Amino acid sequence: MAVGKAPETIPHVNQAFVTAFGKGDAQAVAALYASRAQVFPPHSDVLENPDTIRAFWQSVMDMGIRQASLETVDIEPVSDTMAIERGRYTLSLDSGTLADQGKYLVVWTQQDGAWKIYRDIWNTNQPRQ
Amino acid sequence: MAVGKAPETIPHVNQAFVTAFGKGDAQAVAALYASRAQVFPPHSDVLENPDTIRAFWQSVMDMGIRQASLETVDIEPVSDTMAIERGRYTLSLDSGTLADQGKYLVVWTQQDGAWKIYRDIWNTNQPRQ
Repeated sequence: MAVGKAPETIPHVNQAFVTAFGKGDAQAVAALYASRAQVFPPHSDVLENPDTIRAFWQSVMDMGIRQASLETVDIEPVSDTMAIERGRYTLSLDSGTLADQGKYLVVWTQQDGAWKIYRDIWNTNQPRQ
Repeated sequence: MAVGKAPETIPHVNQAFVTAFGKGDAQAVAALYASRAQVFPPHSDVLENPDTIRAFWQSVMDMGIRQASLETVDIEPVSDTMAIERGRYTLSLDSGTLADQGKYLVVWTQQDGAWKIYRDIWNTNQPRQ
């Protein structure tokens, strides 16, 4: 199966993330990560296990966060099979109230004929409390 | 000038960062970044300008943070000229009191015969306040 070029394809994968998140489908969110993915959530150790990544996103949904938005700022291919994305995110409650907004760096890799999230780290742009 | 292999060389650059930081030398810290580096500090927009990066580290020092430690967990070469490092950091006050500890993802690139920091993002492991 042909794998699209990173700059064209990755925004579609992000859209799949946003859609799955909006449905509360943590399993579908977790399926967008590579098998050897690492996720770096704030206030947490690094998550390295597919089940742990699914459980993390489930826990975010269980906090009442129902909408995610992802906006790509730049995608830079760094090899034939790897690309680095910079973007902005927002997380919102069911009411639409903003829960958090910030920036992310995602390293993407090709696996099983698709671009998958390989490293995922973000932090808030909101003022220090 | 020969550029060393990423896994052997990058820890030495990190040591130079720690040393410069400990001396309060924000200029020397900033010199470890590539000319097109981007830094993603929490509670901030992305910093893309060498002067802004220097000023950011100066502002951290001005907050009374005098000691940084960096511990590499893994360095993965992703091309001949690029590598991704995962690590842990601590920031401490002059008294030795811990100010923050967390994790980081750094993308390194070769420039001017050296490994330089190309993308630098981190977040805290401390509990949500």
